[in-house]
Amino acid sequence: MIIDVHGHYTTAPAALGAWRDLQIASLKDPSKAPKPSDLKISDDELRESIETNQLAKMRERGSDLTVFSPRASFMAHHIGDFQTSATWAAICNELCFRVSQLYPRHFIGAAMLPQSPGVDAATCIPELERCVKDYGFVGVNLNPDPSGGHWTSPPLTDRYWYPLYEKMAELEIPAMIHVSTSCNPCFHTTGAHYLNADTTAFMQCLTGDLFKDFPSLKLLIPHGGGAVPYHWGRFRGLAQELNKPLLDEHLLNNIFFDTCVYHQPGIDLLTKVIPVKNVLFASEMIGAVRGVDPQTGHYYDDTRRYIDGTANLTEEERFLVYEGNARRVFPRLDAALKAQGR
Amino acid sequence: MIIDVHGHYTTAPAALGAWRDLQIASLKDPSKAPKPSDLKISDDELRESIETNQLAKMRERGSDLTVFSPRASFMAHHIGDFQTSATWAAICNELCFRVSQLYPRHFIGAAMLPQSPGVDAATCIPELERCVKDYGFVGVNLNPDPSGGHWTSPPLTDRYWYPLYEKMAELEIPAMIHVSTSCNPCFHTTGAHYLNADTTAFMQCLTGDLFKDFPSLKLLIPHGGGAVPYHWGRFRGLAQELNKPLLDEHLLNNIFFDTCVYHQPGIDLLTKVIPVKNVLFASEMIGAVRGVDPQTGHYYDDTRRYIDGTANLTEEERFLVYEGNARRVFPRLDAALKAQGR
Repeated sequence: MIIDVHGHYTTAPAALGAWRDLQIASLKDPSKAPKPSDLKISDDELRESIETNQLAKMRERGSDLTVFSPRASFMAHHIGDFQTSATWAAICNELCFRVSQLYPRHFIGAAMLPQSPGVDAATCIPELERCVKDYGFVGVNLNPDPSGGHWTSPPLTDRYWYPLYEKMAELEIPAMIHVSTSCNPCFHTTGAHYLNADTTAFMQCLTGDLFKDFPSLKLLIPHGGGAVPYHWGRFRGLAQELNKPLLDEHLLNNIFFDTCVYHQPGIDLLTKVIPVKNVLFASEMIGAVRGVDPQTGHYYDDTRRYIDGTANLTEEERFLVYEGNARRVFPRLDAALKAQGR
Repeated sequence: MIIDVHGHYTTAPAALGAWRDLQIASLKDPSKAPKPSDLKISDDELRESIETNQLAKMRERGSDLTVFSPRASFMAHHIGDFQTSATWAAICNELCFRVSQLYPRHFIGAAMLPQSPGVDAATCIPELERCVKDYGFVGVNLNPDPSGGHWTSPPLTDRYWYPLYEKMAELEIPAMIHVSTSCNPCFHTTGAHYLNADTTAFMQCLTGDLFKDFPSLKLLIPHGGGAVPYHWGRFRGLAQELNKPLLDEHLLNNIFFDTCVYHQPGIDLLTKVIPVKNVLFASEMIGAVRGVDPQTGHYYDDTRRYIDGTANLTEEERFLVYEGNARRVFPRLDAALKAQGR
């Protein structure tokens, strides 16, 4: 079985974007404020958007199940205030839930949080609980920079984030550390901000002792861990300078990397330097890089080809990357699969 | 011959730091302002600081010449105003010049600029010209984020930077794109900010058309290019989405990567995916990672071992990485070496 732990609903019907545009316009002109109930998207429209896109590609590529969350770049937590994000997150999460209901064997949800810069992180808990308890979601996306490229929130090791970690530990759900769109002109969203955030989050955890306080907390760093595996020697050396334990012990019981790295040499490096137990299959399809690589004739984000193609994994290890690790890191996913007899 | 294109004077005598502390204190209390002439460092002190550190390690590791610039994390362009940076840059550059005079076969200078957030980039030109014309410096370090982790300057493709590029083109010197210390608590300086800046700078160039305006401009991205080579497929794919030419043509006549990647698998990846003509030997010794790797028994930053150890390079290609590319990218270095009969 092949589980893709990183997929976003990037192909939602256009009515969703139109609703959001009205919501943003209403920040200046409250008379334009749309109600959540103004958004009408039928099941047929959802089916159309999924079957011709994600599901078609999953079938082509042979992946079975995607952990599916709202479009990352559309979270845009920097827009408006908590109430703006709360309404928007609720709508986006509900759509992912409906997709998971329409295709229960192919999609299972991960929540977007109603984060807002400077707002108490605990305000996100009700939406998180609703998604897990009512929608059966198995993970959550946590944005370490709700400002959108200005990095005004405290590091992930700060107590600011602890209420969320406590709830995650209680619910047994991991967080993918995933920023949203960059409104800082220095940072291209998918070419710089995403990768920088991955590296930044890892280094925040390296300098701190977060997992002493939360030994069961699990954080998934997307996009192959940003720059981290490529600079694994640097990070091992920095941990040493900072008198931290070896990374295996200090971080690798709690931090995991996905395989959203879009060429064979990158996946070869990832699977060579990072222990197999810490690598989870993902493609972020349909996402930042949608084209076909002229060097291979295949889609850049068809990461299964690289996992199948690397000489670094035995068949048993490939099972861990494709399925075993995901079941361990996402216990609620494992339970949901077992309930389906899988 | 082995040329290390990335070394900083991280071991300057303590008097330098003490002078800087007084300068910083004087920002609040001008009566404390030190004069540049208050700083007294003898040639013997310089010799001691170099011979027991950089030069000792160069001899141990068998590198011949280092392109030597002021300590990157101490540039701290966010402190004070233009005059603060101008005085500080002049002092730091002069020390590197003196080192290059004491050891002309082992060190040659690269300039720190007196950047200051929000100040016209053209204000850096006089110091740059002085360093090149009076001190024989062959390169310059350009900080894309003088705010120190708040990223308030325009992208490198913006006309804000053009006066500097014009001067660099005229003087035939390349710039290493190198940030300084981070004063944003989200970013660890050497573990996140440096690598993020490398990735960010590359992506800024990818989205723009800077090298159409400056076809001879040469930018060196340190720390092995941040996350870029590991995600080379992502960047190729993003260029495709943005309707840019292939990266070979779009960027690789102008952008180069150093080899400050502190483990064998990282160097193997770098030398596999990036054309050899774009890779320049460097170690950033003595820098961010000073320890011995328990997995190898050698210093993490002894990058020569990884270059020698990779199966990806022929002897001819190793010559390019160690010497040939540096002579091409730094024409004034080549001229200086030829004047020495090397």
